Amino acid sequence: MSKYWNKKINDIEPYVAGEQPKPGQKVIKLNTNENPFPPSPVIRAVMRTFDIGDLRLYPDTDATDFIEAVAQRECVKPSQVFAGNGSDEVLALCFQTFFEKEGNTDLPVLTPDYSYSFYPVFEQFYDIRSKKIPLREDLRLEADDYIGVPNCGIAIANPNAPTSRSISLMDIKKIAKGNPDSVVIIDEAYVEFSDPYFTAVDLLPDCPNLIVVRTMSKSYSLAGLRVGYAIGSEELIEGLKRARDSFNSYPTDRIAQRIAYAAVRDNEYHMACIDEIIRTRKFTEFALRGLGFKMPESSANFVFAKPPQGIDAETLYKNLRAKGILVRYFKTEGINDRLRISIGTRQDMEQLIAAVKQEVSNVKDS
Amino acid sequence: MSKYWNKKINDIEPYVAGEQPKPGQKVIKLNTNENPFPPSPVIRAVMRTFDIGDLRLYPDTDATDFIEAVAQRECVKPSQVFAGNGSDEVLALCFQTFFEKEGNTDLPVLTPDYSYSFYPVFEQFYDIRSKKIPLREDLRLEADDYIGVPNCGIAIANPNAPTSRSISLMDIKKIAKGNPDSVVIIDEAYVEFSDPYFTAVDLLPDCPNLIVVRTMSKSYSLAGLRVGYAIGSEELIEGLKRARDSFNSYPTDRIAQRIAYAAVRDNEYHMACIDEIIRTRKFTEFALRGLGFKMPESSANFVFAKPPQGIDAETLYKNLRAKGILVRYFKTEGINDRLRISIGTRQDMEQLIAAVKQEVSNVKDS
Repeated sequence: MSKYWNKKINDIEPYVAGEQPKPGQKVIKLNTNENPFPPSPVIRAVMRTFDIGDLRLYPDTDATDFIEAVAQRECVKPSQVFAGNGSDEVLALCFQTFFEKEGNTDLPVLTPDYSYSFYPVFEQFYDIRSKKIPLREDLRLEADDYIGVPNCGIAIANPNAPTSRSISLMDIKKIAKGNPDSVVIIDEAYVEFSDPYFTAVDLLPDCPNLIVVRTMSKSYSLAGLRVGYAIGSEELIEGLKRARDSFNSYPTDRIAQRIAYAAVRDNEYHMACIDEIIRTRKFTEFALRGLGFKMPESSANFVFAKPPQGIDAETLYKNLRAKGILVRYFKTEGINDRLRISIGTRQDMEQLIAAVKQEVSNVKDS
Repeated sequence: MSKYWNKKINDIEPYVAGEQPKPGQKVIKLNTNENPFPPSPVIRAVMRTFDIGDLRLYPDTDATDFIEAVAQRECVKPSQVFAGNGSDEVLALCFQTFFEKEGNTDLPVLTPDYSYSFYPVFEQFYDIRSKKIPLREDLRLEADDYIGVPNCGIAIANPNAPTSRSISLMDIKKIAKGNPDSVVIIDEAYVEFSDPYFTAVDLLPDCPNLIVVRTMSKSYSLAGLRVGYAIGSEELIEGLKRARDSFNSYPTDRIAQRIAYAAVRDNEYHMACIDEIIRTRKFTEFALRGLGFKMPESSANFVFAKPPQGIDAETLYKNLRAKGILVRYFKTEGINDRLRISIGTRQDMEQLIAAVKQEVSNVKDS
């Protein structure tokens, strides 16, 4: 509390990110859905050949080379792509641009009750009413629950976090068509890990109210670089640019633009990393289920696993932490019986499984 | 206009940055107050030795090494420093954190009538009332004009842009002490070019309501890197962190943090660049005055010059542009008789002077 902060800052409950170990601390880090592999090796050459003299000049506000590479990959026009300082910034700008409409400010944004925990923070920070739509059994999202509910917008992560479940393009289309006056954000932070791959970008020609948000943090191993982007109609992208230019005209720096461009262009390396993570995810699901864990089939680079009877999720989280393995535990009621475990290397996951096995047998023995 | 944008986005007039030439276009660029010199050569080694594998992990949210280097340089505690994605983002977070107080939402933020043109955009974007305090003769800011005027906050650029004039620490102290319940932002984007150097950071022990905002873009030649920072009491910095964590927890990327750290530590190079720019500024002022231009003495890396009688500022701007020399012209009434000219290299300024001389003699001849 401070008399110098305004009411909103005094009242807000800021987002709490997963724990970051101190430099030099040796841990197996499976708590923030980072990629266990380094980014594309072509980035090394980008770093070596970058002319540091260029840093004296402001960057290209639109990150033109990068958005052209994205546009080409996604078969859309560059004017349909918007780049920002991480997908959190892009999402924040979406909330500020599309929600809280004139005359409708008492209508809520619809989000699943368990989803990315930054959404309710944005809603509080930008004074937008919120309505949480309960997920169904086993954390399944039912598209019909989003039809006929008055709203000023909808935000859905697909695949959803922390549940790891995805909904089909048919469901997304139903939600978009059923809410033609609202913008529907599809947050595809984890979509590249879905198997088989699919994306709501394919619905854009038919659904002008859809905006797809992506990040370079997960599948491209660039969480440390802070680049995210949105894909939508030119009309929606133009709105995001207006918001950007009312806040910070140069969201992505010159080096980040070059690196993100190089990463998108190296599709072969990207696909190889994703394949390996999907394989390791399947191994992890199989092994954890073998130990009595229950979890929905994951479409992401993490699993959301419920320990077998007799094992408390929070205790397991703490015991793993004591062994140098960080996973994510949410105290939130309704999901406080589960752990979100990021998919690391095969070796990381084998060590995790071994540690979990020990915990399970300790409980059986006692 | 779009039915998908909310009212604010439909209504707002976004900030318009200075023109950026197309890649490969040969111009003398004196329109966005960039530094004509490359950043510290130590950055080359940072780029060469950076371990790209680190990019897979999220960055340090607080940019600890960087803020410690700043804290050491400024003789404050690291907990008194906040780092962001350029000083525009830091300023935007200040507006969102300190202004528009509970019960006081009808009170305005005070700014000079001619100042950084992003301030009114922030006010519009964040629904904050605004009151412009007229500058006095020759664009001088009078501290007394900020005393006894009800407000929810004050934002002053010192040195001011586009006027290039600065006010004294005594004046800043008078404003801070005269408004003890308001936060006073001192935007020191250009302060390192003041001669002799002084900073409002020295007032912090005595004025808990002051927050000083800085950028790495100008004096450190890192406009392309997007790093800015704020210095204030721990209480004010804590508020900024709450706003950051309600919007984007990781505003500065891993590479930017390392480069900004290295730049701050290379004080010798930094001071040498500044000395050269101050020398060139004095040469430019002398030469332009010799051609009949009028301007206040500049404390920044630009001059705000009024052409001699018979020469229209806008025409001169266009004629220089046609010759490949970009300067900044504001259509805004009250300052539309002047040009803001960034200080480039000595050679840049000699070419500018030669081009201006030609324009002046053309008018005399006609």
